[in-house]
Amino acid sequence: MRQDHLISAGQLSRSDVETVLDRAAELDAALEDGDPSLRERHAGAVLALSFFEPSTRTKMSFDAAMKRLGGRVVDMGGVDSSSVKKGESLADTVRVLEGYADGLVLRHPREGAAAMAAEFVDIPVVNAGDGAGQHPSQTLLDLYTIRENAGLDDLTVGVVGDLKYGRTVHSLATALTEFDARMHFVSPESLQLPRSVRFDLHEAGAQLREHTELEPVLDQLDVLYVTRIQRERFPDENEYRKVAGRYRVDADSLNAAADDLTVMHPLPRVDEIAPEVDEYENAKYFEQAHNGVPVRMALLDLLLRNE
Amino acid sequence: MRQDHLISAGQLSRSDVETVLDRAAELDAALEDGDPSLRERHAGAVLALSFFEPSTRTKMSFDAAMKRLGGRVVDMGGVDSSSVKKGESLADTVRVLEGYADGLVLRHPREGAAAMAAEFVDIPVVNAGDGAGQHPSQTLLDLYTIRENAGLDDLTVGVVGDLKYGRTVHSLATALTEFDARMHFVSPESLQLPRSVRFDLHEAGAQLREHTELEPVLDQLDVLYVTRIQRERFPDENEYRKVAGRYRVDADSLNAAADDLTVMHPLPRVDEIAPEVDEYENAKYFEQAHNGVPVRMALLDLLLRNE
Amino acid sequence: MRQDHLISAGQLSRSDVETVLDRAAELDAALEDGDPSLRERHAGAVLALSFFEPSTRTKMSFDAAMKRLGGRVVDMGGVDSSSVKKGESLADTVRVLEGYADGLVLRHPREGAAAMAAEFVDIPVVNAGDGAGQHPSQTLLDLYTIRENAGLDDLTVGVVGDLKYGRTVHSLATALTEFDARMHFVSPESLQLPRSVRFDLHEAGAQLREHTELEPVLDQLDVLYVTRIQRERFPDENEYRKVAGRYRVDADSLNAAADDLTVMHPLPRVDEIAPEVDEYENAKYFEQAHNGVPVRMALLDLLLRNE
Repeated sequence: MRQDHLISAGQLSRSDVETVLDRAAELDAALEDGDPSLRERHAGAVLALSFFEPSTRTKMSFDAAMKRLGGRVVDMGGVDSSSVKKGESLADTVRVLEGYADGLVLRHPREGAAAMAAEFVDIPVVNAGDGAGQHPSQTLLDLYTIRENAGLDDLTVGVVGDLKYGRTVHSLATALTEFDARMHFVSPESLQLPRSVRFDLHEAGAQLREHTELEPVLDQLDVLYVTRIQRERFPDENEYRKVAGRYRVDADSLNAAADDLTVMHPLPRVDEIAPEVDEYENAKYFEQAHNGVPVRMALLDLLLRNE
Repeated sequence: MRQDHLISAGQLSRSDVETVLDRAAELDAALEDGDPSLRERHAGAVLALSFFEPSTRTKMSFDAAMKRLGGRVVDMGGVDSSSVKKGESLADTVRVLEGYADGLVLRHPREGAAAMAAEFVDIPVVNAGDGAGQHPSQTLLDLYTIRENAGLDDLTVGVVGDLKYGRTVHSLATALTEFDARMHFVSPESLQLPRSVRFDLHEAGAQLREHTELEPVLDQLDVLYVTRIQRERFPDENEYRKVAGRYRVDADSLNAAADDLTVMHPLPRVDEIAPEVDEYENAKYFEQAHNGVPVRMALLDLLLRNE
Repeated sequence: MRQDHLISAGQLSRSDVETVLDRAAELDAALEDGDPSLRERHAGAVLALSFFEPSTRTKMSFDAAMKRLGGRVVDMGGVDSSSVKKGESLADTVRVLEGYADGLVLRHPREGAAAMAAEFVDIPVVNAGDGAGQHPSQTLLDLYTIRENAGLDDLTVGVVGDLKYGRTVHSLATALTEFDARMHFVSPESLQLPRSVRFDLHEAGAQLREHTELEPVLDQLDVLYVTRIQRERFPDENEYRKVAGRYRVDADSLNAAADDLTVMHPLPRVDEIAPEVDEYENAKYFEQAHNGVPVRMALLDLLLRNE
């Protein structure tokens, strides 16, 4: 990977993605074995976490990843108690943080924030989400989970839920076009893929079909990627319940699906997947969350060694 | 200790308690000596702190304990900025955290939360307080402090203050019955031991007596355990002042007590113990707080090695 | 340095200051070289951060410094979730923290808090700001930055901005009198040096002059130290704008100054320095912020070894 920063999943070629996933697999095995050399790997290195928006899970996962590599972490903490509140620009903030650390993980509500930060500092910047923009480490851990379970070749993926606001989904779909995956998008009409995303996917040569019902496509899928439908998106509670109920994945859904269907979800879930599905062997959403650690270890390992 | 989790003090036999206290004493001595092997003891291990309710002191003490053992810590942070706010269940949250760490310390406002968490994960869970339920590491550090100062044999303990809402006190009293301690409970009538706790203590064979005045029993005590009386418990300020004043421990109280009376308090204190008592040789409440570190080191050491 | 604590810049003789700055220079070089012995230097030591007032930057800088020395850090977190809220005294809080750590960094809104804390504990206390009082590590990093860039001999320093409320400035000015620096203070009349500070500086033999315009003195300066003017200090927005505009440092200011003028600012800045100045070779405010790490490493190194 000849990158200095990780700003968007789109910047990564198929071969870059494979480099990250291969490294993640090595590190995952080393974790599993309790390999003591892991904790010397980035001993002495310091990573700064700068989250302008809360995201405990992503933050903890980067935090654990750096610590599993033997490194240290310093955290900017909430924005309320920081210089940002006094009117400091993002460019100034990241230039100060640069003096404290060897790498920077940034989450910011404004699209383009990470790319901008990367222009101002000489240490690697990892985008941990910028508004409606990118969240590339999530995409990489999704790809890693798919590769570990269903493989990335000759793949059919179904994505169900909120396809309009789901940044995770857009980014994953873009990445999957690199692997010639077939994609089925299932959502209520009001939460379909935005026109611009659909256009970009078509431009990228994506093989995609859109549906309003899940059942008819279920048995064709290798992977079912479920996303949360937010109550706030609906004008009234009844409308929400109807939609949420329609896409809920439960034991019946699994009966209608291929035996080895891999079920994924970026979590947190609310009601989209029934608890009974947790017992199903190929329910991989917790494994998917756990994969955040080896995948982020791989990213940090590749970027910090790049220096 | 053949436990996988530490959920309640009640789960620990007298011999389990002694195993923990003995290990704590060893680690305490190693800390005192600056033994460099300590920091290799759990190097590479990661502990997750998951506090659904604030408790800075308990959290810092677990944090310091893990770090003194050479381990790393990841912290879920406040609940406001976490997936919990989006409606995630506790079972889901702990199953995600399991992927980040080798052990989990949980504090939660709901009684039974830690026991439930322990059913869902394969890493050791330590209960750091669950509502009106248990807070076993506090009980263990209290026992450790008593053992170091007064010994646990042939012991007479007085507990004064809020005995109604004081979870700490109920749990300590239960544990002390294992050591055949004699107990005197001193409180205003409105803050007496709850009937159910009194019943359970009697069932466990506790030797206990209840009083409304401290003075008459003072000279019989080896240990005086003072607890905070919260202003909020009283309908009016005057009532509170009268009670708070009646049980305040000061130089006069010490004169009426045995020479080697050990004075304890779980802290924070407000006015229950006069500052002049701090100078008294057997005022052990700060030592008691400090004992949180070796005792929690012992717990983590025993549980993380159990894996 | 024969100090047990660092409470005020005033406690440091010129020779003490030089000891800290020399140690900082050594550690800075070791950081630059990636010297692996650094991370063994305080391995096993734990530093407690106790910030009763938010100050992310100072906190992160101490955090990074301790970690660069191989040590660990435990953080009390916000005051809202701590025992302080239950009415605990500062003396009690620090005596509890003493049991968790080998050193204590304290920030507190009350002047004199750090000195008081130092009386109650046996571990080194570093004052990271106490109300209108001292913030000595800031002064030391300012001196370090001046020494690295302009030298501390035969020095002329201009300080511009809010001289009334700027604690940083008072403390730096006091320290500079030890080095016989010439000082020019530039501010609107409403934000001049407080009478008491002026008096103390004169008593200390300071060579100081006060001005309302920056331009006339610019070409005499080796160092220009710019401070933020807070909007809240002005009765109305127009008044603020007039003043802020008058002292704004931009390309024109640099043209009127000596070629090697060092420009400093404690950051965060808002509009006091135009972004175009960032490109100027001797704009040293980001370097100044970064110097917080080696200088705080030096302080911790000297104090923790003192034990």
